[in-house]
Amino acid sequence: MNRNKGTWEELFEVNRERFIEEWKTFLRFPSIGADPAHHPDCAVCAEWLTAHLAAMGLQAELLATPGQPAVFAEHCGADGAPTVLLYGHYDVQPVEPVDAWTSPPFEPELRNGRLYARGAEDNKGQTFAVLKAVESLLARDALKINLKIIIEGEEESSSRGLAAKLDEWRDRLAADILMVADTGTLNDGTPTIIMGLRGLIHLAVTLRGPSHDLHSGLHGGVALNPISELARLLATLFDEEGRIAVEGFYDGIREPSAVERALIEATPFDPAAYEKSVGMPPIAGEQAFTPLERLGFRPALDINGIHGGDPNSMKTVIPSTATARMTARLAADQDPDRCLTALCDHLCRHTPDAMSLTISEAGSAGRAFRIDPNGPPVKLAQGVLRELFHCEPICHWEGASIPIIPALAAASGAAPLLVGFGHEDDCIHAPDESFSIDQFRNVYLYAANLLVAAAQTSTKKTPAHDASRTD
Amino acid sequence: MNRNKGTWEELFEVNRERFIEEWKTFLRFPSIGADPAHHPDCAVCAEWLTAHLAAMGLQAELLATPGQPAVFAEHCGADGAPTVLLYGHYDVQPVEPVDAWTSPPFEPELRNGRLYARGAEDNKGQTFAVLKAVESLLARDALKINLKIIIEGEEESSSRGLAAKLDEWRDRLAADILMVADTGTLNDGTPTIIMGLRGLIHLAVTLRGPSHDLHSGLHGGVALNPISELARLLATLFDEEGRIAVEGFYDGIREPSAVERALIEATPFDPAAYEKSVGMPPIAGEQAFTPLERLGFRPALDINGIHGGDPNSMKTVIPSTATARMTARLAADQDPDRCLTALCDHLCRHTPDAMSLTISEAGSAGRAFRIDPNGPPVKLAQGVLRELFHCEPICHWEGASIPIIPALAAASGAAPLLVGFGHEDDCIHAPDESFSIDQFRNVYLYAANLLVAAAQTSTKKTPAHDASRTD
Repeated sequence: MNRNKGTWEELFEVNRERFIEEWKTFLRFPSIGADPAHHPDCAVCAEWLTAHLAAMGLQAELLATPGQPAVFAEHCGADGAPTVLLYGHYDVQPVEPVDAWTSPPFEPELRNGRLYARGAEDNKGQTFAVLKAVESLLARDALKINLKIIIEGEEESSSRGLAAKLDEWRDRLAADILMVADTGTLNDGTPTIIMGLRGLIHLAVTLRGPSHDLHSGLHGGVALNPISELARLLATLFDEEGRIAVEGFYDGIREPSAVERALIEATPFDPAAYEKSVGMPPIAGEQAFTPLERLGFRPALDINGIHGGDPNSMKTVIPSTATARMTARLAADQDPDRCLTALCDHLCRHTPDAMSLTISEAGSAGRAFRIDPNGPPVKLAQGVLRELFHCEPICHWEGASIPIIPALAAASGAAPLLVGFGHEDDCIHAPDESFSIDQFRNVYLYAANLLVAAAQTSTKKTPAHDASRTD
Repeated sequence: MNRNKGTWEELFEVNRERFIEEWKTFLRFPSIGADPAHHPDCAVCAEWLTAHLAAMGLQAELLATPGQPAVFAEHCGADGAPTVLLYGHYDVQPVEPVDAWTSPPFEPELRNGRLYARGAEDNKGQTFAVLKAVESLLARDALKINLKIIIEGEEESSSRGLAAKLDEWRDRLAADILMVADTGTLNDGTPTIIMGLRGLIHLAVTLRGPSHDLHSGLHGGVALNPISELARLLATLFDEEGRIAVEGFYDGIREPSAVERALIEATPFDPAAYEKSVGMPPIAGEQAFTPLERLGFRPALDINGIHGGDPNSMKTVIPSTATARMTARLAADQDPDRCLTALCDHLCRHTPDAMSLTISEAGSAGRAFRIDPNGPPVKLAQGVLRELFHCEPICHWEGASIPIIPALAAASGAAPLLVGFGHEDDCIHAPDESFSIDQFRNVYLYAANLLVAAAQTSTKKTPAHDASRTD
């Protein structure tokens, strides 16, 4: 590995400008998977990516799914060597509010060493850095493992298409390590191995009152107001101590093990640094747990969008409806269906008799999962990161969700290994998303070294990840 | 009056088609006074209206104000006769949600005897019907009073321009009766004299949390969510009994007099008919008062708009801000400034320490007022309506606001007389606003007969309306 280390750094420098230009091309596709208007853009993006992987020397093909197409590529034939399955996604989050962007979200712009665009980090940037590492390994004939790549187009909206195909693609995806570069580092950028992700459920609610918008003078104080009632309804979801006040919601949560507890207690977390980065102290949620425990081992319920009436002008109406969208992040062993039912029941029970509540788009995008800190993939990554960055990597339970991971791990038989170099400053899912060239380079170097080191590991399956248990 | 009654009905029929075509022309101007993008449309609309009044034989002119221009016209010279000041407005409410309209809001369409367009009723339709009555009187040389007309362009947003000019225009506007056709009838369309309107205060609040939109997975359960907190904040504005839970808000409310109480108790109100018309029973607000008391003599607080995050797609963010707009309708003798201060204080006091609350556009659009049920203008209108519709007119305290009325009454010295033929079915301020030709005709007939009958009244000022006290 040492022998190659210099090589990869040099190779990166030699190719830096080309890598950035190709990455920009990837970012110009407005591949918003959740928006039907952008589905043609997703298809074009996937076609471009397939061609790009083929040009790199991989066997690449576009795979149809019931949703957006997936890109599959492989480079096999290293008999006896382990198989790494790289997972990524080419779809991106919506761009609203588009006016808040400094430069247009699909016209990548390099400013102060950072590339700004929707998807610059999540996940086009991180995945493309891994792909460029693969390209370098292929160019040097240094890829001594079997590599499979699956890049889907619906991670941000449900992974519906890929999920539907997992059973059919079981052989195609079979692997030992499920490599994912779609996560971040803690604090100052110390390399971070993600030890677990939360599950995700989602729903939209519409509260209907009057049969049509009413004049708020002629009806104010007589007709129930859907906005006020929605506010009251949403307020019932939380108690004074920051807990989710939904009966049965916390049922079944798996406590951290002693090893996990020791690791999380050893993880540095600076509330002042958090406040500086986020603009608010980390004071939400259950006060009985530390911020890192709340993110890693506890659920959270967030209202992600709300709308009612005319928020932009002095329109004196009592609107006929008001709408909110919410998602809950689930802890390990919480049952998504039971949580969803508990949430819907609570909302219905607290709706005024004279109004009707419509719940739509209710669903589960996946369960939470946790990875065994003592499993071989984690040990492999720790060795690579330690040598590359000259420090001890952090083990972190991140709080976000990559809903397909547990199912993909189960279908492929591979143990998940989640290492990425995202950072809070990247503003993913928000205006002015960006990824620095340094971060991109870190992903590249980590991936190159990991794929080299993986050749030395045994192909014996690790039973350590709990994916099969949680999906 | 009897001699003319047939005349006006015949004249209406003769001119029906022309009236409708001219009314349509008036409706085609998208004169949304609250929207700066439509201010040029307001100016063009006012110019058209001025020319129209001049063509009718009135001395008409366009008057500049610090806001949208006002249209003034007069026909004086009836020495010793009373002076009627007609007030109306050519501005209309915004049209959102525009997709909810059956036909485009500024392309008037006649369907089943109703004209559909924004402003069809409020207030272009009602005011234009009065103007057509004036035209008919002029044509028959039957206008035996002094008539002044002021039609402004900002009633829906503040009457800012007119309010600023009232002192300067005191002589120009001096009159005995302030005639307004901008109100509705109760229930089945029984002619209704509005005995009072509520005051209005308004404000917008923006709750700011994180410095940028956050990923709800990486921060859920740690970062305070502005939407959840705004919901909680808005929920604190009301108690369980439907009262406004803002300290001091109810201070100073004037109780109904014995005469007013007797009139309101005699007013028919059918909860089942209300529910049929509105789609909800009349159960909001203070349960200690009847629905008509709540509308006429009690304040109400309504959230008119709310927005946060992305309500239209599955965007898993904790947005950096959430916004709401609200208005309160005030009862007689409530002080708008004190109510506004109490409301702002409450909101600030209940904002979490880690967040900031920005209050904008806070202001008062006018106090409530009540009219003496025994004053001469009310008696005059009762006589005209009784004869025309063969039933006893209802005295009603409507609940809405025409904020400029108290100030206009004070400046002109005229006693307000509010009779209109709007109805809940007209959907004013909402999609598919409409006004039936029958309603238009009722306004026309009422106005023609009232202006004839007014010639017989004394010009002695009535001290009965309380406008000078409340503004």
